[in-house]
Amino acid sequence: MSETASTRTPLSPTPRSSLTRAKERGRTDRAELDAVLDAGLICHLGVVLNGSPVVIPTIYGRDGDTLYLHGSTGAGNLRAAMAGEVSLTVTHVDGIVYARSAMHFSMNYRSAVIHARPIEVTDPDERMHALRVIVEQAAPGAWDAVRSPNKKEMAATVVLALDLTEASVKVRTGGPRDEEADIATGGVWAGVLPLRQVFDAPISAPDLDPEIEVPQHVLSRVSDAVLAG
Amino acid sequence: MSETASTRTPLSPTPRSSLTRAKERGRTDRAELDAVLDAGLICHLGVVLNGSPVVIPTIYGRDGDTLYLHGSTGAGNLRAAMAGEVSLTVTHVDGIVYARSAMHFSMNYRSAVIHARPIEVTDPDERMHALRVIVEQAAPGAWDAVRSPNKKEMAATVVLALDLTEASVKVRTGGPRDEEADIATGGVWAGVLPLRQVFDAPISAPDLDPEIEVPQHVLSRVSDAVLAG
Repeated sequence: MSETASTRTPLSPTPRSSLTRAKERGRTDRAELDAVLDAGLICHLGVVLNGSPVVIPTIYGRDGDTLYLHGSTGAGNLRAAMAGEVSLTVTHVDGIVYARSAMHFSMNYRSAVIHARPIEVTDPDERMHALRVIVEQAAPGAWDAVRSPNKKEMAATVVLALDLTEASVKVRTGGPRDEEADIATGGVWAGVLPLRQVFDAPISAPDLDPEIEVPQHVLSRVSDAVLAG
Repeated sequence: MSETASTRTPLSPTPRSSLTRAKERGRTDRAELDAVLDAGLICHLGVVLNGSPVVIPTIYGRDGDTLYLHGSTGAGNLRAAMAGEVSLTVTHVDGIVYARSAMHFSMNYRSAVIHARPIEVTDPDERMHALRVIVEQAAPGAWDAVRSPNKKEMAATVVLALDLTEASVKVRTGGPRDEEADIATGGVWAGVLPLRQVFDAPISAPDLDPEIEVPQHVLSRVSDAVLAG
């Protein structure tokens, strides 16, 4: 991970977002928060409903210091999210860490945990902008190629904005941290099994006009090896 | 997804775990819950700390109707989890759904949301069993190859058990669900960009005895194409 200084707002962890375990995995560079969020396709949103936590996967988009969520006006979880604080987490698993002892097995990962009180976005221009940001996070380059939301769709949509000030980033990289005694004993393989997400060749919709080709903004996400395969 | 009837306990959603949106994506077959959980490497655990939700990524393991978590006795989130209810979610993103209009963009995914009141496991044999289940979920075949937890490590470890009775599974597959008018207008590519996780070639620890080969339980997770690559 880059340790380059950022000109962006630094992370300002509160006691809640500070790390109580494995402090060496914490990162305070704002650029690292942005990198973890920008690489994500979904987040896990935690809200409190009737006193109990509920964690739901949802798509999101980041623009500067703001993270946008959207949902149907009929979604109970989103209404609950508007009423109080939320926790929002994005995690990438980069590898499985095989150790010489069971208790040192681990994962290599990057994760960002946000705490915020969501604000409903009501300005029409910002609402449209937020939806663009969310679609572009999931499908870069797609927004300008498709039909924009119409009035009926906008009326059925809630858009929320979360401030990214209260956030923490944790990153684990590298091999196992085994006990000296276990290393000395030897005889056990130890290392990392790396893991990554890959896109496969796009599948056109069954009802698509066969003359419409897969656009470059989709093809560019797939590796040459996969397309050749 | 298989729709085969299961002899296991069916999902018994409460109002909280029932779906208020997109009911056609719900699944009630217990085998589908197990499949989503068993395919996961991490979950997102939601707890309530001082009235606010906190969502943290963590590893887990499933054995029958029980899901196990573990952590350090010093971890505040785990202590909070012991004190009340938790929500635990496992999500697999299988593809990005490109639609002909912005509001119909979506993800193909499988997700399981569990609601439970964790119970601390105190029986020494069950504690050791739970740790085996957790390690085997992350690294199948590894437990018997490595040093087991010793007394000191067990004393520093909290093990929690969650009952899987209150759970819901959502699955989205297939192409975009576009408006008839947008299909008729045409001119826009629509389809699915599939996504999957792949393991890369294992990386031995720098301090590993070079005579120790990568074991079969690790190698078997990597595709032949990657190993030949």
